[in-house]
Amino acid sequence: MASPAVKELPRVLLFRLRRLDAPLPDFLAAAVALPDPPRAAVIVGGRSVRVDASFLDATPSIAFVFSTGAGVDHIDLRECARRGVAVANSGTVYSADVADHAVGMLIDVLRRISAAERFVRSGLWPAHGEYPLGTKVRGKRVGIIGLGNIGSLIAKRLEAFGCVIYYNSRKQNDSVSYKYFSSVHDLAAESDVLVVACALNKDTRHIVNKDVLEALGKDGIIINIGRGANVDEKELIRALKQGRIAGAGLDVFENEPKVPAELFSMDNVVMTNHVAVFTSESRAEVRDTTISNLEAFFSGEPLLTPLVPPR
Amino acid sequence: MASPAVKELPRVLLFRLRRLDAPLPDFLAAAVALPDPPRAAVIVGGRSVRVDASFLDATPSIAFVFSTGAGVDHIDLRECARRGVAVANSGTVYSADVADHAVGMLIDVLRRISAAERFVRSGLWPAHGEYPLGTKVRGKRVGIIGLGNIGSLIAKRLEAFGCVIYYNSRKQNDSVSYKYFSSVHDLAAESDVLVVACALNKDTRHIVNKDVLEALGKDGIIINIGRGANVDEKELIRALKQGRIAGAGLDVFENEPKVPAELFSMDNVVMTNHVAVFTSESRAEVRDTTISNLEAFFSGEPLLTPLVPPR
Repeated sequence: MASPAVKELPRVLLFRLRRLDAPLPDFLAAAVALPDPPRAAVIVGGRSVRVDASFLDATPSIAFVFSTGAGVDHIDLRECARRGVAVANSGTVYSADVADHAVGMLIDVLRRISAAERFVRSGLWPAHGEYPLGTKVRGKRVGIIGLGNIGSLIAKRLEAFGCVIYYNSRKQNDSVSYKYFSSVHDLAAESDVLVVACALNKDTRHIVNKDVLEALGKDGIIINIGRGANVDEKELIRALKQGRIAGAGLDVFENEPKVPAELFSMDNVVMTNHVAVFTSESRAEVRDTTISNLEAFFSGEPLLTPLVPPR
Repeated sequence: MASPAVKELPRVLLFRLRRLDAPLPDFLAAAVALPDPPRAAVIVGGRSVRVDASFLDATPSIAFVFSTGAGVDHIDLRECARRGVAVANSGTVYSADVADHAVGMLIDVLRRISAAERFVRSGLWPAHGEYPLGTKVRGKRVGIIGLGNIGSLIAKRLEAFGCVIYYNSRKQNDSVSYKYFSSVHDLAAESDVLVVACALNKDTRHIVNKDVLEALGKDGIIINIGRGANVDEKELIRALKQGRIAGAGLDVFENEPKVPAELFSMDNVVMTNHVAVFTSESRAEVRDTTISNLEAFFSGEPLLTPLVPPR
């Protein structure tokens, strides 16, 4: 984020809240004690920083919070709105990349690509002619939890593979023809693959729980590119171990960067290190979006990707 | 293939030409010496058996050859036609699965899914916060060599990801709007990703050679779901080693099941063991197609998926 353009913004102090040199309260206290205290905060990554009442209490000069991430579960939007602190994030910059990664993991799990990779690299192919078959992508019923930007792009891609798309979200979307399920449990019961593409909030924490896994069943597959805590990880591992679901593709985990070691020995699981949002191109796009939003805020123009508009 | 339905076909001997108990000439001699010699041959897999003049010389009773595979580089179609031996294969049964696998490998290589998998399984994530970024799928120019059934399905899928499709084939296909290149070299020069989806024959052996790899360039990626010998494997490995291309996704190799050990240490290569055609569902579909073609042949009806029709 430390691009020259950001640094040249007039009379503004920006700060990164990642890999802080000092504990957060000290860092914030030092920033607001400056002669020209920061009016905007840019949260890069943000997994370790929560923008909540105590953060805002400590930074009365801050009137705009920009988060470079896609999710905003670390920002108390209601508290920001109550205090007149504007909030923006990177908007849909990541959506296509996350959708691509989700579809890549879905194909990978169904067709056993990473498992075949390990098999070939181990040098076992010449000795073992037979190899466990994967399963077809075409015709699979894919239930998407959360049909926002990312979920919609996943659906669009999977339609081209001949998948049947179902979805669950807070409310039905009349602009799509996919079958809507108001209950995640019912969605799981009718789906071969369940894709978690919703935001994390109190309603969606452990939205995939023991009952939903049970409904998905022994041939079912979970793909999670939302947040780790959208899935009850302990129950997921238990279901995988006992063969009560068939496999999983996981880009996110409940206690990142910790991944439960039990998953390491499972051949029917594909795991990536929360990289669905990251490509070399998206990093540049995020920088541009960050700068454009800051420029808009400081020049009194409407924010480009607002979550809470300036008062 | 040993389904009851096949066995019940009247007055027919079918034989598998894979994992023979005896050398092929002895096996064929024994079959034709039977009181009711076989009139049809079903080649399962077929990587080790060539149906050529000497095969046909040894089996004068055979009037129909069915190959369960997708490719027919092991069958001399011209020689079969000259002798009035009908030939059929599994037609388009595999096409969607192969296309899915190709797209899966393409996303995998671009987004480094299998590499991230190894990283996570190694337990390195907590210690190494930073991870090499992948590159976006959207906007990539994908050059497809061979716009047959499989190539067309790959194109259709990648359009949904926002890729730009180019192609090379023996002749231009007027029913598609993708940009056509009569030269593979020129196609490679204009493409970010080159997908090999053509049949193997004398014109397409090493169709991806040193010059084509050079034209593809250091940011370019090769995906091969055709045949190993469509690519000059030695030159491919040399180009990968020297960083003259960026990565590869390979389901096929020149000397299967042998895979050059130099590939095992490359993080930018995704390898699978010639499984793009295989899913549990396609195996059943192939069995049905085999039976239907045999029934058609023996009842004098038109073959369902003929390559050389009966005389």
